[in-house]
Amino acid sequence: MNTIAPVELPKAYRLLNHGPTVLVSARHAGVSNVMAAAWACALDFMPPKLTVVLDKATRTRALVENSGVFVIQVPTAAQAQLTHRVGNRSLAEAPDKLAEAGVELFDMPGHDLPFVAGCSAWLACRLIPEPHNQQTYDLFIAEVVGAWADTRAFSNGHWQFEQADPALRSLHYVAGGQFYLTGESCVVKVD
Amino acid sequence: MNTIAPVELPKAYRLLNHGPTVLVSARHAGVSNVMAAAWACALDFMPPKLTVVLDKATRTRALVENSGVFVIQVPTAAQAQLTHRVGNRSLAEAPDKLAEAGVELFDMPGHDLPFVAGCSAWLACRLIPEPHNQQTYDLFIAEVVGAWADTRAFSNGHWQFEQADPALRSLHYVAGGQFYLTGESCVVKVD
Repeated sequence: MNTIAPVELPKAYRLLNHGPTVLVSARHAGVSNVMAAAWACALDFMPPKLTVVLDKATRTRALVENSGVFVIQVPTAAQAQLTHRVGNRSLAEAPDKLAEAGVELFDMPGHDLPFVAGCSAWLACRLIPEPHNQQTYDLFIAEVVGAWADTRAFSNGHWQFEQADPALRSLHYVAGGQFYLTGESCVVKVD
Repeated sequence: MNTIAPVELPKAYRLLNHGPTVLVSARHAGVSNVMAAAWACALDFMPPKLTVVLDKATRTRALVENSGVFVIQVPTAAQAQLTHRVGNRSLAEAPDKLAEAGVELFDMPGHDLPFVAGCSAWLACRLIPEPHNQQTYDLFIAEVVGAWADTRAFSNGHWQFEQADPALRSLHYVAGGQFYLTGESCVVKVD
């Protein structure tokens, strides 16, 4: 059963607002790659924008620079090992990196981009070229042009972690192979 | 008992790596303010840098622009209501905002900055002026020049949420007064 549904763009920021570690994927000239990034962040509500830090050593960065488009996706607790693997191996040294990490890619109609299967949310991004930021800080700014979520994890504009399978929770990377999972919900009185 | 200890700068990024919602505080000409920000992110390891989005409507932004320094601190689960309050009221409209939100400020020797008591970590930041980013994207870049943590929550270069009082966990804001707390630890095999 396909549980992927579009997320309206004004609510796309909510897919990143809780600060998850993400997967960045891109494709150029027939080469696809996926990397992990703990340093991705929402930047604006509407049109939605985001920032992501892409080190000069990564192949994914070159694909982004050449294609001008990429996907930011939110991996799940079930993908912790996959996330760590794609974050620690380079396509340059391990041509079979994606298969070895267990990454399965799929297409989303209308977007020539590699989407990673099994994630909880996907943001199709168009690079806003800012050469100074990219060169000086490895900082990339993009506009979100499409958003989708697995409705078991995110629906009605909100994450549903309280009711969802814990395997769908997001990952928050620290260091040395350690993540924290997204935890309990805490709702404060709005006064 | 004072449980605040310095964090060595090469590990300062770990205070933000899990993507918590933060409090931004700043002081200029005798006026101090504190706001909440879900859009703060590590940018570099060493020297540590970070990004934070500061809307033009906020008083804190003007204080940062005038003083060139600010504090990013990580509030705890126990401070959820405080965090939501300082994020939703402006000093311009509520001169007693900080007292009403229950904010207590303290000084750190050698830094002329307002630190918020009760947080789990503090990053003293020096603005790296980037007028284009600030004007176009509300995006501020800073170097972290000092870092401290409550040793009950972060010690030996790692968060200690597994052993710590749950009230010390970090907050991850979504929308409408809802946060997720930092959850379980998940350690993958590093292969």
